Amino acid sequence: MRIDGRDNAQLRDVRITRNYTKYAEGSVLIEMGDTKVICTATVDDKVPPFKKGSGEGWITAEYSMLPRATKVRNPRDISKLKINGRAQEIQRLIGRSLRSVVNFSALGEREILIDCDVIQADGGTRTASITGAFVALVDACKVLIDSGIIEKMPVTDFVAAVSVGVVDGCEMLDLCYAEDSNALVDMNVVMSGNGQFVEIQATGEQATFGRQQLDKLLELAEGGINTLIKLQKEALGSLADEVGRISKDEKILSSDEE
Amino acid sequence: MRIDGRDNAQLRDVRITRNYTKYAEGSVLIEMGDTKVICTATVDDKVPPFKKGSGEGWITAEYSMLPRATKVRNPRDISKLKINGRAQEIQRLIGRSLRSVVNFSALGEREILIDCDVIQADGGTRTASITGAFVALVDACKVLIDSGIIEKMPVTDFVAAVSVGVVDGCEMLDLCYAEDSNALVDMNVVMSGNGQFVEIQATGEQATFGRQQLDKLLELAEGGINTLIKLQKEALGSLADEVGRISKDEKILSSDEE
Amino acid sequence: MRIDGRDNAQLRDVRITRNYTKYAEGSVLIEMGDTKVICTATVDDKVPPFKKGSGEGWITAEYSMLPRATKVRNPRDISKLKINGRAQEIQRLIGRSLRSVVNFSALGEREILIDCDVIQADGGTRTASITGAFVALVDACKVLIDSGIIEKMPVTDFVAAVSVGVVDGCEMLDLCYAEDSNALVDMNVVMSGNGQFVEIQATGEQATFGRQQLDKLLELAEGGINTLIKLQKEALGSLADEVGRISKDEKILSSDEE
Amino acid sequence: MRIDGRDNAQLRDVRITRNYTKYAEGSVLIEMGDTKVICTATVDDKVPPFKKGSGEGWITAEYSMLPRATKVRNPRDISKLKINGRAQEIQRLIGRSLRSVVNFSALGEREILIDCDVIQADGGTRTASITGAFVALVDACKVLIDSGIIEKMPVTDFVAAVSVGVVDGCEMLDLCYAEDSNALVDMNVVMSGNGQFVEIQATGEQATFGRQQLDKLLELAEGGINTLIKLQKEALGSLADEVGRISKDEKILSSDEE
Amino acid sequence: MRIDGRDNAQLRDVRITRNYTKYAEGSVLIEMGDTKVICTATVDDKVPPFKKGSGEGWITAEYSMLPRATKVRNPRDISKLKINGRAQEIQRLIGRSLRSVVNFSALGEREILIDCDVIQADGGTRTASITGAFVALVDACKVLIDSGIIEKMPVTDFVAAVSVGVVDGCEMLDLCYAEDSNALVDMNVVMSGNGQFVEIQATGEQATFGRQQLDKLLELAEGGINTLIKLQKEALGSLADEVGRISKDEKILSSDEE
Amino acid sequence: MRIDGRDNAQLRDVRITRNYTKYAEGSVLIEMGDTKVICTATVDDKVPPFKKGSGEGWITAEYSMLPRATKVRNPRDISKLKINGRAQEIQRLIGRSLRSVVNFSALGEREILIDCDVIQADGGTRTASITGAFVALVDACKVLIDSGIIEKMPVTDFVAAVSVGVVDGCEMLDLCYAEDSNALVDMNVVMSGNGQFVEIQATGEQATFGRQQLDKLLELAEGGINTLIKLQKEALGSLADEVGRISKDEKILSSDEE
Repeated sequence: MRIDGRDNAQLRDVRITRNYTKYAEGSVLIEMGDTKVICTATVDDKVPPFKKGSGEGWITAEYSMLPRATKVRNPRDISKLKINGRAQEIQRLIGRSLRSVVNFSALGEREILIDCDVIQADGGTRTASITGAFVALVDACKVLIDSGIIEKMPVTDFVAAVSVGVVDGCEMLDLCYAEDSNALVDMNVVMSGNGQFVEIQATGEQATFGRQQLDKLLELAEGGINTLIKLQKEALGSLADEVGRISKDEKILSSDEE
Repeated sequence: MRIDGRDNAQLRDVRITRNYTKYAEGSVLIEMGDTKVICTATVDDKVPPFKKGSGEGWITAEYSMLPRATKVRNPRDISKLKINGRAQEIQRLIGRSLRSVVNFSALGEREILIDCDVIQADGGTRTASITGAFVALVDACKVLIDSGIIEKMPVTDFVAAVSVGVVDGCEMLDLCYAEDSNALVDMNVVMSGNGQFVEIQATGEQATFGRQQLDKLLELAEGGINTLIKLQKEALGSLADEVGRISKDEKILSSDEE
Repeated sequence: MRIDGRDNAQLRDVRITRNYTKYAEGSVLIEMGDTKVICTATVDDKVPPFKKGSGEGWITAEYSMLPRATKVRNPRDISKLKINGRAQEIQRLIGRSLRSVVNFSALGEREILIDCDVIQADGGTRTASITGAFVALVDACKVLIDSGIIEKMPVTDFVAAVSVGVVDGCEMLDLCYAEDSNALVDMNVVMSGNGQFVEIQATGEQATFGRQQLDKLLELAEGGINTLIKLQKEALGSLADEVGRISKDEKILSSDEE
Repeated sequence: MRIDGRDNAQLRDVRITRNYTKYAEGSVLIEMGDTKVICTATVDDKVPPFKKGSGEGWITAEYSMLPRATKVRNPRDISKLKINGRAQEIQRLIGRSLRSVVNFSALGEREILIDCDVIQADGGTRTASITGAFVALVDACKVLIDSGIIEKMPVTDFVAAVSVGVVDGCEMLDLCYAEDSNALVDMNVVMSGNGQFVEIQATGEQATFGRQQLDKLLELAEGGINTLIKLQKEALGSLADEVGRISKDEKILSSDEE
Repeated sequence: MRIDGRDNAQLRDVRITRNYTKYAEGSVLIEMGDTKVICTATVDDKVPPFKKGSGEGWITAEYSMLPRATKVRNPRDISKLKINGRAQEIQRLIGRSLRSVVNFSALGEREILIDCDVIQADGGTRTASITGAFVALVDACKVLIDSGIIEKMPVTDFVAAVSVGVVDGCEMLDLCYAEDSNALVDMNVVMSGNGQFVEIQATGEQATFGRQQLDKLLELAEGGINTLIKLQKEALGSLADEVGRISKDEKILSSDEE
Repeated sequence: MRIDGRDNAQLRDVRITRNYTKYAEGSVLIEMGDTKVICTATVDDKVPPFKKGSGEGWITAEYSMLPRATKVRNPRDISKLKINGRAQEIQRLIGRSLRSVVNFSALGEREILIDCDVIQADGGTRTASITGAFVALVDACKVLIDSGIIEKMPVTDFVAAVSVGVVDGCEMLDLCYAEDSNALVDMNVVMSGNGQFVEIQATGEQATFGRQQLDKLLELAEGGINTLIKLQKEALGSLADEVGRISKDEKILSSDEE
């Protein structure tokens, strides 16, 4: 039995609260057990240089933890003048994951900035960030549609993420911090609503792993992500139906071009 | 009548939630209307260089806003490699205010780090930070007492803060953002439980002000702070009674010295 | 009697030297006792982003100390890659104080950059900076008038500043460093020529203070500032008469708009 | 047929040159086709804070590219004052990969710093860095043994890495830049000499991927890594035999403790 | 006899390898004994602000060492967030030296960025950088000519550099590191093909020097530089003939202006 | 005739004011024409890491300009987070020049920090800094002697510096800014009291120069420096006699070692 009484294939309690703060176009609090992340989506008129004039949009993510989201206080990046490597790795992962389900011509030449700020960290903050940020992203796109700026939901599929790992010789789903720090193998899996992989990051710094273990872990992840996508749909209600109406590669003409 | 229907001398709804997150020695969510700040207090064994070997402690504060706590997204300090001037001014104010009610020899040679992170900003974030951080500070000191590290509560009095200002020719208490951005004169007042001033910061960039206006504003602030201190006491319950048992200047011998 | 033989309500010797260096549009050395600050005013064609296209100008200030302006050498900001919090607080204060007496439409869409560099610090550097920078600002505006770029002096009133404090139980005007470091209460007051307050910053980190003390301190400050404004007028000579010919809010059309 | 005439399962020409520069304890030039990386290993007496007093060592890696290692010049990190996110992600990967095959008690309380500097980048620089840095690491450990500082080779197994990806619908081994920039799925695999996985990083930003594709890619990677480990052994000559004599978890007493 | 058996007036073995890497417009490996520097020249369409609209070009240089180019590892600049003073001094010297032989109107409004990256440092890295970078610069200009962007080689003369110094009381040419660190006087001389000086930097931190010693050192340098320019010509082959066809001050009209 | 009526071999008016500010151990204002530099010398108990435990001292210099010391305002380094290359080059030169005349064992294991802050720049700020800083250095050493910390003046000789250059085809001494910006060849020479060179930095970015010009320039410099050293002696009065009593290499035992 696991430290908190769960089955090996069981997620922690998940809560997705939309409109958590009042200013952002999309604002979600996601809680997975004691892990709590505020995910906001901000629409920006400007795009990064490499997209200028392309008629296409972009998604960027930033990830940070409050200094005391963790057992021991982490000094703020600004006090060291360096963004820490772990945060940079994570925010790049969040960005790639969300971009995998956005049609950039449907979004039009604008950027959506995702901010994932961890209020409390109990394992799985990067995967919770992806799962929560997806909902904030859909909300922000809805604001663009409602204000007549774009016509169709540019989000082409659901995307969610979960951690899995090998702890005490057992493959387990959704590790809490106590499990994670004992895990020999640690893996983050991102999948889309069509059951395909978006990202797999498996690390065996403490112990290497074989193909069988990998297969077992991927299976656990797939089950967890299916549940998370169901919860995203519940949270979004009728808005969920707008996701996936256009495909990732479909070329959408902007009103100017039509 | 004010924008949100309040009297000129009326505070917004105030909520102080203790133990808001699980790791910090003190952790408080303070809400004043739509302004929401997480205040944590972290005990650190080390003191700043100028206190080393003194047997006395110190209080330091940091203040920051989530990027989308505001109407328009603020880039993170780290992306510009500079802590913004406003935040630095505010965190210095929070530190001074809390230090004014701590007996450093009773605290012993250790530092309490206060983190005020604004989740949502609707005016008065710096004064809410002071009022909330005070409660987190008391909780953190209680942890030190309960674990036998110090003997007596080193907090010598209550301290709370509020903003006042002149809007449309009227003096008003506890400005929300819409009022604040129209204020000709803007003032932050910090007072202790004994009814004395700790800090007054009055700014008339838009319009200068005379002695009478100053007096009126100080009176409003005094009323508001009295209420806030009552709310701090309610939040702290029986722990409130431990505050003020020793005075600021009383020399407390550490167990080593006794 | 005070450490340097002054009355409690007496300023130190004040000297204001205009045209102290030869390149800046305004350049003033202000000496208050042993406190010496070089204040220059530089005209810049560009305005900050939030003023672009407004037809209105802006005033920004920077404040710094030479490393050995003080008893103990302070490392330069660049060696720590951080502007220190105290300097940032002070330069924001200087900027607000000067902006309170400038009509930005009369200045036109340009910026005046104020640099206050402390050569020797013996208490009261921030208030001396304001008093000296005001004179440099008027000189720089005169250059704009003389070269036909603007028509009228955009400075709407005089502004000066002084420190007051409670030392050994007595309220005193214009603290030198030895007094300042013993002060229980420390206050900086900025007033304009019409006898109104522009800024009040009162700090009681060492001891709180009551309304009566506050009143006494404000009275001392008022007296000191009246004297300082007289000295500014003497230093400016006939140029002093051009100050205040237009009011702060009067809308001045630029030549383009007329 | 591939752009450079290779089979899908074929590596580019690989050359591993030991002792490439004369000062470092280990210094290797690895060339995989036109990708060229200098990997040096430096022995440092100090360990990171979290290892101090543990009697155990550590491995850290840094990764950088010369500005013109690429088609378009990349400004140096220092000119932007920020280490770029991609480099940080890569150097963390290199560090974890090498640490997976080192017995830290056998290394003793010292750090080996790995520097991977890309001279020319034609795809696969991070995996070439791992493969080359492994050889430099073994050389540096040999220096420690030869100078009597440690007794046994602390490297417990071989480790090498390769990229695989899906290009034009085909799974391919060891992508060059032209292939990499057209890849829909891109994957870096690190394996140890015992045929187990150390790291898997699979990214489908352009297109998601299924289990079958994953299996195909892992198979290709396994083949490539087997060849690379053979080449590492050839390059190391008789020194290769010393690798793996102790296991990762075996506790080695330092001479002090014996 | 010198440490490596050379005469006092003898250079180390010099090798200049053109096209050392494949992407840069000019790319040279220069080896002087064990000192090895990669010099690349990158053509950039943009010029620095002070050259904008002038129709004239510019040359900028950057100099850096791989962390383990030296006996003791040097941390990367980015890890300290500061470019080290020595590197900055050197890259300014390289830039000035190359600019002394370029006709900027013939180059047209574009910048050539020189990167000198030291792979292995055994004394004389700055002078080797100048000598090698010159060749890379000519190659980059040739690319501009061949692609029809400019008409004539804008390089007006050869330029090369060498170090000289006083070691054990003897004047010596081209110091290796062991000699350099014992030198009482250390001097870097840059000369152009016409036998004139471009830069002289003589330093006597350990011991002052007189006019006679200076004369002796300049003579040695002149001899060495003559040889180096011969080697540059050999390396450039027929391209060497294009250097010096126009003079530094000749005004070349751009095709737009003609 | 020169722009300001001087002969080609004539210095501008030089004024050296000792004890210019009151806190520093040495504090000098040097004026050469309109160039004005405040040079302070600060005694610090700590030495740089490479001198720790050596029993020997060190001299470090920092150089900076007030933002409006020049015709056009220069932003402060801290606002760009980078110390500018020119300043870094200059402060390294000042440090080397002063170190050439200090016996470090006589100074004992402590550092003297030189700060050269340019109040007004009209050409020759780096050479004026050296000449002025020398006087501040002697004053600071005298403080060490007077307080019984060291026994003998550790300054072994005088050192001063001047600029020379070729303007309109003429070799000239001590260029003012207007001359300097027209100079084809620009040279800074540092010499000690014994008539020997300490540093020569000659730059011909605009035009190369031959041996004869070099000789002419060195002669001019020698004459100027002789005058400057006379002025240093006058400024120091009887203290001048203490300089040079010990030689640079003489080993002085510290009181501990005796």
